[in-house]
Amino acid sequence: MSLKFKAKDVRGIFNIMPTPATADATRWDCVDSVDYEESARIVNMLIDNHVDAILTNGTFGECASLTESEWRKFNQTVITTANGRVPVFSGATTLNTRDTISRSREMMDMGATGLFLGRPMWQEMDEDAIVGYYSDIAEALPDAPIIVYDNPEAFKGKLTPKTYGRLAKIPNIVASKYISVGPQYLADVAAAGDNIVIMPLDSDWYFAWKWAPEKAKATWTGSGNCGMAPLLALKHAIETGDDTLARTITLELRDAYKTLFPRGSFHEFSIYNVQIEKARFNAAGLVKAGPCRPPYNRVPEEITKGAVTTGQKYAALQEKYASN
Amino acid sequence: MSLKFKAKDVRGIFNIMPTPATADATRWDCVDSVDYEESARIVNMLIDNHVDAILTNGTFGECASLTESEWRKFNQTVITTANGRVPVFSGATTLNTRDTISRSREMMDMGATGLFLGRPMWQEMDEDAIVGYYSDIAEALPDAPIIVYDNPEAFKGKLTPKTYGRLAKIPNIVASKYISVGPQYLADVAAAGDNIVIMPLDSDWYFAWKWAPEKAKATWTGSGNCGMAPLLALKHAIETGDDTLARTITLELRDAYKTLFPRGSFHEFSIYNVQIEKARFNAAGLVKAGPCRPPYNRVPEEITKGAVTTGQKYAALQEKYASN
Amino acid sequence: MSLKFKAKDVRGIFNIMPTPATADATRWDCVDSVDYEESARIVNMLIDNHVDAILTNGTFGECASLTESEWRKFNQTVITTANGRVPVFSGATTLNTRDTISRSREMMDMGATGLFLGRPMWQEMDEDAIVGYYSDIAEALPDAPIIVYDNPEAFKGKLTPKTYGRLAKIPNIVASKYISVGPQYLADVAAAGDNIVIMPLDSDWYFAWKWAPEKAKATWTGSGNCGMAPLLALKHAIETGDDTLARTITLELRDAYKTLFPRGSFHEFSIYNVQIEKARFNAAGLVKAGPCRPPYNRVPEEITKGAVTTGQKYAALQEKYASN
Amino acid sequence: MSLKFKAKDVRGIFNIMPTPATADATRWDCVDSVDYEESARIVNMLIDNHVDAILTNGTFGECASLTESEWRKFNQTVITTANGRVPVFSGATTLNTRDTISRSREMMDMGATGLFLGRPMWQEMDEDAIVGYYSDIAEALPDAPIIVYDNPEAFKGKLTPKTYGRLAKIPNIVASKYISVGPQYLADVAAAGDNIVIMPLDSDWYFAWKWAPEKAKATWTGSGNCGMAPLLALKHAIETGDDTLARTITLELRDAYKTLFPRGSFHEFSIYNVQIEKARFNAAGLVKAGPCRPPYNRVPEEITKGAVTTGQKYAALQEKYASN
Repeated sequence: MSLKFKAKDVRGIFNIMPTPATADATRWDCVDSVDYEESARIVNMLIDNHVDAILTNGTFGECASLTESEWRKFNQTVITTANGRVPVFSGATTLNTRDTISRSREMMDMGATGLFLGRPMWQEMDEDAIVGYYSDIAEALPDAPIIVYDNPEAFKGKLTPKTYGRLAKIPNIVASKYISVGPQYLADVAAAGDNIVIMPLDSDWYFAWKWAPEKAKATWTGSGNCGMAPLLALKHAIETGDDTLARTITLELRDAYKTLFPRGSFHEFSIYNVQIEKARFNAAGLVKAGPCRPPYNRVPEEITKGAVTTGQKYAALQEKYASN
Repeated sequence: MSLKFKAKDVRGIFNIMPTPATADATRWDCVDSVDYEESARIVNMLIDNHVDAILTNGTFGECASLTESEWRKFNQTVITTANGRVPVFSGATTLNTRDTISRSREMMDMGATGLFLGRPMWQEMDEDAIVGYYSDIAEALPDAPIIVYDNPEAFKGKLTPKTYGRLAKIPNIVASKYISVGPQYLADVAAAGDNIVIMPLDSDWYFAWKWAPEKAKATWTGSGNCGMAPLLALKHAIETGDDTLARTITLELRDAYKTLFPRGSFHEFSIYNVQIEKARFNAAGLVKAGPCRPPYNRVPEEITKGAVTTGQKYAALQEKYASN
Repeated sequence: MSLKFKAKDVRGIFNIMPTPATADATRWDCVDSVDYEESARIVNMLIDNHVDAILTNGTFGECASLTESEWRKFNQTVITTANGRVPVFSGATTLNTRDTISRSREMMDMGATGLFLGRPMWQEMDEDAIVGYYSDIAEALPDAPIIVYDNPEAFKGKLTPKTYGRLAKIPNIVASKYISVGPQYLADVAAAGDNIVIMPLDSDWYFAWKWAPEKAKATWTGSGNCGMAPLLALKHAIETGDDTLARTITLELRDAYKTLFPRGSFHEFSIYNVQIEKARFNAAGLVKAGPCRPPYNRVPEEITKGAVTTGQKYAALQEKYASN
Repeated sequence: MSLKFKAKDVRGIFNIMPTPATADATRWDCVDSVDYEESARIVNMLIDNHVDAILTNGTFGECASLTESEWRKFNQTVITTANGRVPVFSGATTLNTRDTISRSREMMDMGATGLFLGRPMWQEMDEDAIVGYYSDIAEALPDAPIIVYDNPEAFKGKLTPKTYGRLAKIPNIVASKYISVGPQYLADVAAAGDNIVIMPLDSDWYFAWKWAPEKAKATWTGSGNCGMAPLLALKHAIETGDDTLARTITLELRDAYKTLFPRGSFHEFSIYNVQIEKARFNAAGLVKAGPCRPPYNRVPEEITKGAVTTGQKYAALQEKYASN
């Protein structure tokens, strides 16, 4: 085993970028919907603003709705632009093991630091199937660090502590992108041990840190696309143990996110995940995420409105912390 | 509009065939996992035994876990072998609209009668998204008849009567593969009107027919792969109005299926849909469905045992009705 | 065993009556909220119009929100008024076994034909607890016929076929008030055998009869409170095998009930079960059900509106069939 | 308003005691099932060991399965024995508003400090119904302090932040017995403001305190019945800000509770709440909770086994901290 990126390297702000779309990306007959120039610009902007790692092609990164060639060319752009300045984890979730392995191999050959991998979701997977899936990938790509994507809505079920315990024995798996910090978090962290860093969402980071200060070393976010300043301030506060400031920024983030989850429901959010995230990125004004690709290109107006409000409120925070 | 296959043509037994697998299909490094010879043999067997239509690549047809090239070559084999003797509906469900359109176009160009289409399932889709998705496909392929795949577990939600009403206005959609006949069935049938034939499962067919005799003109099944005889007997009984016989065969089917659904739960069945169906086809002895492709290649033993029992009990029915 | 009312006696229309309320019944300081005169009048009206049996104090009969003395006096009124002309099944569901037994004993002593019993619902009960509960009651009251109240929302779970099989061995249990006829109905009926008559709702009766003509001998309803005529017509059609008429009336009932279930959801209906049912009875105009007792005395206006529409539409059916 | 016990008085350890049962309490024909002597002994033991308040008749306190006269006499015993040395909150949840008011009035007249009140659970209640219910009680008993019992399984739904905000305007409500600290906790605390102290379970207390140090002033527990020593040590650690010790004790508690929740599920626990809690109290050896009253007197052996293990592990903690 010679992983170049290990659990101990999972530190700070892991930002997932969108896949910027051309104006006609919403049409079924669009052939190449990616705005590659904007893609490169976002990578540079994130790096210039001290992101710790870049992830591509989760849910709002439209892993599902890119064609294979768009996906390939987009990741090539990101990896080439990053050029080793920060780690890049490429999303390569597909409908099955073999496709994920072949796409993953492409990414590693292309120079990705590692992989950002959810699981096939046509059939719900039981524990054995989940562990088997990641084990197969690890066997196929022994040198590829993996960030597990733990999204109960997308992949039909939350990873259990027992599953985390088994995944922790697969050396490739270094981190997981985690959903809300609640009763199960401590059990998951305990099961993951030192082998997998469980990364909470930015607005949960402080609360995870209060509960498990040794474990909460990194956060995942999409808000870096709306401005890195509040996140950097939060990171600094947590790393220096400034409880009051960390709490203040966290509450500001939470206030900004109030309208992100329709009726406060993660389930409802998940029905419009792509549409909501792209709308808020666009509203914040720093990146041109563009429109959404089909079939996730329709959305009720009130949902968009909430997303736009969130983006605007975050932009105000960005202004505040950028000028500090 | 010039559909060559219309709602009025949806009659009788629509059998979904498996995608026969080679012995090493369960491995992540298997390159071509399809047993094409057996695929052709199954098509011939079904046609020789009076199937009304053949469908490919739903859930147990492993749409999710075939590589694109396997999928292409397999459908080519099926279409070529069928050679117009019965309609063939090719499964082309992918993670997004554009991929489904391009695959659908290939199938139609290859000579498929029509398409068998579920919907993208990374994000749950609301009514507008569902209607938009099928509308986009219809716009792209105005001559392609479509059988909608209505599976609430696979696609994160059951179609509602309101959605059926809207889908009924898309001329391409001629039928739907339907899940259990219960309280919502009548509302769905009413909404679908004469434009979409709602096809219940074989063991629900009789009960659908009792409730809606004018509408229950066809059934979907996978049991044709275990023998067409009981299905033909059932079809004949229903078409000739032989209530007693139709009921008898239905209860026999239901008895055979008793162990198909673990703990009687469709949700639990759905976690092992591929594994269960292939195990019962193999156990019935008429087709060599082979092992399951990753990631759906692991399954608890007791689940397999139930599936095998089902296959064996069906085989006994096949023997009984084949000799009639 | 010498049950005076057995499963074979469960035939026809079992109507649950409301517990008519005085104008101030909605207040927490109301001492006696029952309109006894109207209670007696309803009993007479139902009997005059050929109801087959009367049930009291299920959910909309406000078993939960009567004081014990109101409950006692109300049932006394019903039993005395009926005076043996039709069987009366008194509701005596409480929070525990012993209270239900002592109330049940009172009712039997008072002259009730039998009991209408849900189960304690503070804790969800498993199969053993359910069977144990009804067994205890049967042991305490060996001569009391029991109609089981099978309401998954009120009592935190649907009876399973296995539970029906075990309940069928308790001689006292003669019938069950059943929720929607769907996939589980046939298994429940098979498990119940000849010992328990599963009674579907009036608008499901026809469909139950189509599936299980030998078993669907009775229906439960609350619509007798809005007029017995459509129900008598339906009963006659089913008993004489007039399929077309039975279906026609059923579809008319279903059309009338369209706005009864908010958004078509039984769960949402259950949040306002009392409020909805009393509003529709009042709107139909034949009985004065009066206002709702606390804590179920608040209800969103749009919910009431749907209930009123249902009552009015049923009243039109009553007029139609009464004049036939 | 002249509440004698206010939100600011909610501090420390609020222990819910069981209702000790005689040997024949499990039978349906038991007339008085309460062991009053043991009841008094438990009250004295708790007070001698520095409990801050005593609560009666929640779920495991068998509010549901006591007869009214048992309930009355038991609470009389508790109140008389406590004799003002610590506050006593009597459980008076019934199936409706009026019964709860009349029982509550009895308790206040008898000398209870206040009330411990869940809500009627035959019908699920919406926000207006919940607020209306507690408002009615407050109107009827303006001097009675109320601890709200927020148990989503027992009462068919978790209180929302919005509901907490409305309840906070009812001056009587001083605290809530809260279920697991997770994503909603902060919103509930914010909505409750200074008017309602949200009390987490003992093993959640530390985690609530880490998130909301100003708000987490009290905990609810049943473990005082197994020994007050670990709870007192935890309380002291939290009040003196000894983070390491508080965390250590918390992890010890959590380890002891590992087998309390079958399969880690609060839903499954809730099916056997009474049975599990009484079994662990009995196993810990300090109190004689006795057997369970019907209908909650049946329980699978493996469930009991987990409860017993929990009781024994807690007893070891009690020994450890009692000797400190």
